[in-house]
Amino acid sequence: MDHEGRLNRLRLEIKNYDVDFLLVTHLPNVRYLCGFTGSSAALLVSDRGSMLFTDGRYRTQADQEVVAAKIVIGPKTPALAAAEWLASRHESLRPRSLALDPESISAGMRNRVVSAMKGKLRLRSLPPVIETARMVKDPAEILCIRQAVKLGAGLFHTARRKIRPGATEVEVAAGMEYEARLAGAEGMAFPTILASGKRSAIVHGRASAAGIPQRGFVVCDFGVILAGYCSDRTRTVHVGPPSKEARELYESVLEAQLAAIAVVRPGITCTEVDRAARNVLKGRKLDRYFTHSTGHGLGLEIHEAPRLAMGQAQKLQSGMVVTIEPGVYIPGKCGVRIEDVVVVTSSACEVLTPTDKELIVI
Amino acid sequence: MDHEGRLNRLRLEIKNYDVDFLLVTHLPNVRYLCGFTGSSAALLVSDRGSMLFTDGRYRTQADQEVVAAKIVIGPKTPALAAAEWLASRHESLRPRSLALDPESISAGMRNRVVSAMKGKLRLRSLPPVIETARMVKDPAEILCIRQAVKLGAGLFHTARRKIRPGATEVEVAAGMEYEARLAGAEGMAFPTILASGKRSAIVHGRASAAGIPQRGFVVCDFGVILAGYCSDRTRTVHVGPPSKEARELYESVLEAQLAAIAVVRPGITCTEVDRAARNVLKGRKLDRYFTHSTGHGLGLEIHEAPRLAMGQAQKLQSGMVVTIEPGVYIPGKCGVRIEDVVVVTSSACEVLTPTDKELIVI
Repeated sequence: MDHEGRLNRLRLEIKNYDVDFLLVTHLPNVRYLCGFTGSSAALLVSDRGSMLFTDGRYRTQADQEVVAAKIVIGPKTPALAAAEWLASRHESLRPRSLALDPESISAGMRNRVVSAMKGKLRLRSLPPVIETARMVKDPAEILCIRQAVKLGAGLFHTARRKIRPGATEVEVAAGMEYEARLAGAEGMAFPTILASGKRSAIVHGRASAAGIPQRGFVVCDFGVILAGYCSDRTRTVHVGPPSKEARELYESVLEAQLAAIAVVRPGITCTEVDRAARNVLKGRKLDRYFTHSTGHGLGLEIHEAPRLAMGQAQKLQSGMVVTIEPGVYIPGKCGVRIEDVVVVTSSACEVLTPTDKELIVI
Repeated sequence: MDHEGRLNRLRLEIKNYDVDFLLVTHLPNVRYLCGFTGSSAALLVSDRGSMLFTDGRYRTQADQEVVAAKIVIGPKTPALAAAEWLASRHESLRPRSLALDPESISAGMRNRVVSAMKGKLRLRSLPPVIETARMVKDPAEILCIRQAVKLGAGLFHTARRKIRPGATEVEVAAGMEYEARLAGAEGMAFPTILASGKRSAIVHGRASAAGIPQRGFVVCDFGVILAGYCSDRTRTVHVGPPSKEARELYESVLEAQLAAIAVVRPGITCTEVDRAARNVLKGRKLDRYFTHSTGHGLGLEIHEAPRLAMGQAQKLQSGMVVTIEPGVYIPGKCGVRIEDVVVVTSSACEVLTPTDKELIVI
């Protein structure tokens, strides 16, 4: 990954906002900028170079992972260590302004950082420049996501093999997760959702000890992390012969999903993609059961910008990677969701690992 | 779990601080207080009852999980929805003061909550009353932790069976994780650490694709989540015949761990427990390689209060559950860590699932 290039671009960008130092505290942003994957870190970015603050547990790991930033090991919370370092070097460095990320730093830590600076620096606000940069993936990132999505997609074969009446949801999920690990995944991108029968109406129905019933939908929503990057996919299958209503429900969700994919292209707003899916369901009087947004960006995080939802004026750009995942959930009865990851191309989008999405009956 | 009792005690306690409403935003605290396990929630606690704010994805789940609080579903970020609700009911409820948790709410969200209140309520600060309550586990919680620790401990047998030269670290971890899932774990409490040979010197050396070498230590640090509660255990084994130095290193860490366990009792400070371990290593001139604290509380979170570290004046109390896990890491060479979970009893402590800790040679 081009950490040096990312840091250089960020250094130039913060100058535009008259910011001398930027304290990066959101760990996925730290990883994006300098490659460090530890769980405790703050990255101080400035014209003079970058410094990664972490603690003694990560000495060896930081040495191995970080190239483009100086490493500072200490016992204090990294953000506070960075603020104290800045305050102590105030005379020699003459920094005038510091920007924090208000969305990732806690209100308490912000106050401690401000105290540590002892009035020597002015706090400046900054738009979410790193998140904005991260929305558009570079080729190395798209390759990583492609590989994660490919690995993730393969797990569905395991699910298909294991889903049968009487098997528990968690047996199916465990088999998928085991396979993911052996195939090189660092872990799952989120707790595997395996929701069968009436549980399929629970949008985030994590795999439970419940047995898969003789008849009904099974929603499988799962993702892996591979080399730091996430995949995310949902398939819904039907155990036993589906009723006419069940089949119609599935077809409606599939049509909504295909309609959203069909409109994805550079320049379209996130709202418009969401609306494309929602309108199909509205036409079937199912829109009130579509209780979440149509999709989200993914990369180093399973949920990142942009959000494909109502009221999101953000326009898609080539290189953005998003999920398309409408769903319908009828409380107490059943649910269906179908999800793919797509990358926005110069003219439309590419569905990563496209597959036949006809209803699978087990 | 006694959610109603916890909420009632909290309601009484916040009155002591002249707080009318408390907005709980830390998700493990939300779960602790009302049982809700979703990933998006804010709980508003007051004398008049409690309200859980979440979004449409969690309608069914909230209905199933939450008993002692009213459920409010809406499209907005839960903390903001709660603040707006409070502001809109200001006339009828006449709330005067609201407390937030500055450590779990972001600086940005705090500002949005304050804006939404439109000056109608005063913000008050509150000590970490929920974290303090959570430090001492009730019998139902200790039972959950005991079961999680028991399940977790069993995985070490799998590790022992799978650790052999040439096997990859991740193969061993995958086998442990698969077994955990089939045994009922919701997932792992943290990414499984399986660090062999020189990698054992990396304190948080997640299982990698590296093959286990012919000779050297293998640090296995792993935990499960069962019914929401975490386990945490580390064992270090040696592949091939250990050198005299390796054996001495192991014995030093074990002696440090036993020394710390020996002093755990109600009334002792966290610093004193840490010192007991550190002093043993100091006597062997190994203390500079012991780069982390001796332990931490665990429960609904893998790391929670108290911290068994230098400068921690918190006294242990009966019912606290903590890890005891000294380690020694010689950069570029090797590392050893030994960890158990103990519950503080009325006079000393009980090691959950005690086992022989002599060096295992594979």
